[in-house]
Amino acid sequence: MISHKKGRQVKEITSFSNPLIKNMRALTLKKVRERGGMFLAEGLKLIIDALDHGWRIHTLVFAKSNLCNMLLEKTAARAVAAGGFVIATSEKIMATITHRDNPQTIVGVFEQRWHELEKTIFDENSLFLGLDRIRDPGNLGTIIRTADATGISGIILIGETATPFSSKAVRATMGSIFTVPLYRISEKRFLDWRRKFPGFVIGTHLEGKLDYRSVNYTKEPILLLMGNEQKGLLESLTCCCNKLVQIPQKGRADSLNLAVATGIMLYEIGYKTFRFYKKSP
Amino acid sequence: MISHKKGRQVKEITSFSNPLIKNMRALTLKKVRERGGMFLAEGLKLIIDALDHGWRIHTLVFAKSNLCNMLLEKTAARAVAAGGFVIATSEKIMATITHRDNPQTIVGVFEQRWHELEKTIFDENSLFLGLDRIRDPGNLGTIIRTADATGISGIILIGETATPFSSKAVRATMGSIFTVPLYRISEKRFLDWRRKFPGFVIGTHLEGKLDYRSVNYTKEPILLLMGNEQKGLLESLTCCCNKLVQIPQKGRADSLNLAVATGIMLYEIGYKTFRFYKKSP
Repeated sequence: MISHKKGRQVKEITSFSNPLIKNMRALTLKKVRERGGMFLAEGLKLIIDALDHGWRIHTLVFAKSNLCNMLLEKTAARAVAAGGFVIATSEKIMATITHRDNPQTIVGVFEQRWHELEKTIFDENSLFLGLDRIRDPGNLGTIIRTADATGISGIILIGETATPFSSKAVRATMGSIFTVPLYRISEKRFLDWRRKFPGFVIGTHLEGKLDYRSVNYTKEPILLLMGNEQKGLLESLTCCCNKLVQIPQKGRADSLNLAVATGIMLYEIGYKTFRFYKKSP
Repeated sequence: MISHKKGRQVKEITSFSNPLIKNMRALTLKKVRERGGMFLAEGLKLIIDALDHGWRIHTLVFAKSNLCNMLLEKTAARAVAAGGFVIATSEKIMATITHRDNPQTIVGVFEQRWHELEKTIFDENSLFLGLDRIRDPGNLGTIIRTADATGISGIILIGETATPFSSKAVRATMGSIFTVPLYRISEKRFLDWRRKFPGFVIGTHLEGKLDYRSVNYTKEPILLLMGNEQKGLLESLTCCCNKLVQIPQKGRADSLNLAVATGIMLYEIGYKTFRFYKKSP
């Protein structure tokens, strides 16, 4: 049975018009997520990842039909212990919360977590990724997942950007959203910060003069900048790079998918800076 | 004005129940595409790409409101000259064909094109990609686009697979669907063919003993095998590889997105086999 620490209990809700349910349903809207600083994580795996990494849970909702699932019960108990509301409801209400026909049997509302660039400390192992006005949430989620696999120090979202906390992006991260530090900053503030950044800034650009494999990425803080899906890197960001590189392309394709290009760059830098050796080489 | 070669003309259709329109609408269904061997390409850029590469056009439909667009008129004339039906219709009917609220102003129906593995000739520059039961059409389209950028010789779809001719996949290829030779084959037929394949077969596998960057990919026909998104490479396909490699991963991620992993592998092989030099090194 689920423990009732802090006097909280599992509450059963059967009404579509219950305010808690209505608030959760609204979290698919960007402006509502922004205002409240919350987001939805769908499915048991993601919710366990979030709790394991200490993300603050606000509400946990599950379909009553799953009450016999031991792992789900245990997770609900953890949510109660962490101070979250826990709600049992119908599958139909679950479907309205996630706006999907086949909803997950459990959904959690968590607090968003943003880091501050100005307070971040760098060392020779730091590897940051800056994304210039990224548009596609699926791309963003995939990039967070890939960056996690290369041991990234953080991802900086620059300018008007897709949010990593939309359901589509969260799903595409496969749980890496809970381990990769995320930053969000205007173009102007980023440029101010960059003047003080002690490391090496490298931009990927269709007109970059250097082949991306010809550069000596060395042991110092590195910031990789990747441009918008359609428009590439902003002029102001291009100008703040120490080097501009290009990923060569044959065939009729004139560009790569942004997540693929970012993966290729991060693995190249990762190898050149010995990030994949178990011990120092 | 559009020429009327072969006596064909631009026909105006205003009825939702017109059989031509109904047939086009049905092309969003996989079974209908399979039965007729046709598919939809949406948007002027894709249609021009298809015509440039000699793909056989069956029908071209455009919204009447765009009749003054010179490039569209020229494209319609090319379609007529190539023996296609050309239909002018309303934006509402365009929306029903593409099942989208904001449809492209022009849509083409083309014949699918599949190549036969048994008839393909290999040389030392051949680089093939085999995809084992790929599920996601977006992934497949992105992989076709990436493979095109590395000068791939062909992509072999093995077993039960997503189709590259769904609208989502076609869009994600950004036009590379018209230049990358595509093959489709059962697991059994693939294994039969593999016994006669004179080149080097490399599989990407979570339990691969070799780091993907440690292998000497050399000048000979190469076939790279990538496994299903959830399940990885089939046992039978794993066994037919000369080498199994792994892409190392840090962080909590336990896998990479398939399109990203394929891009990393293809660029690694591309570099090691000098595919990106303008002249032979």
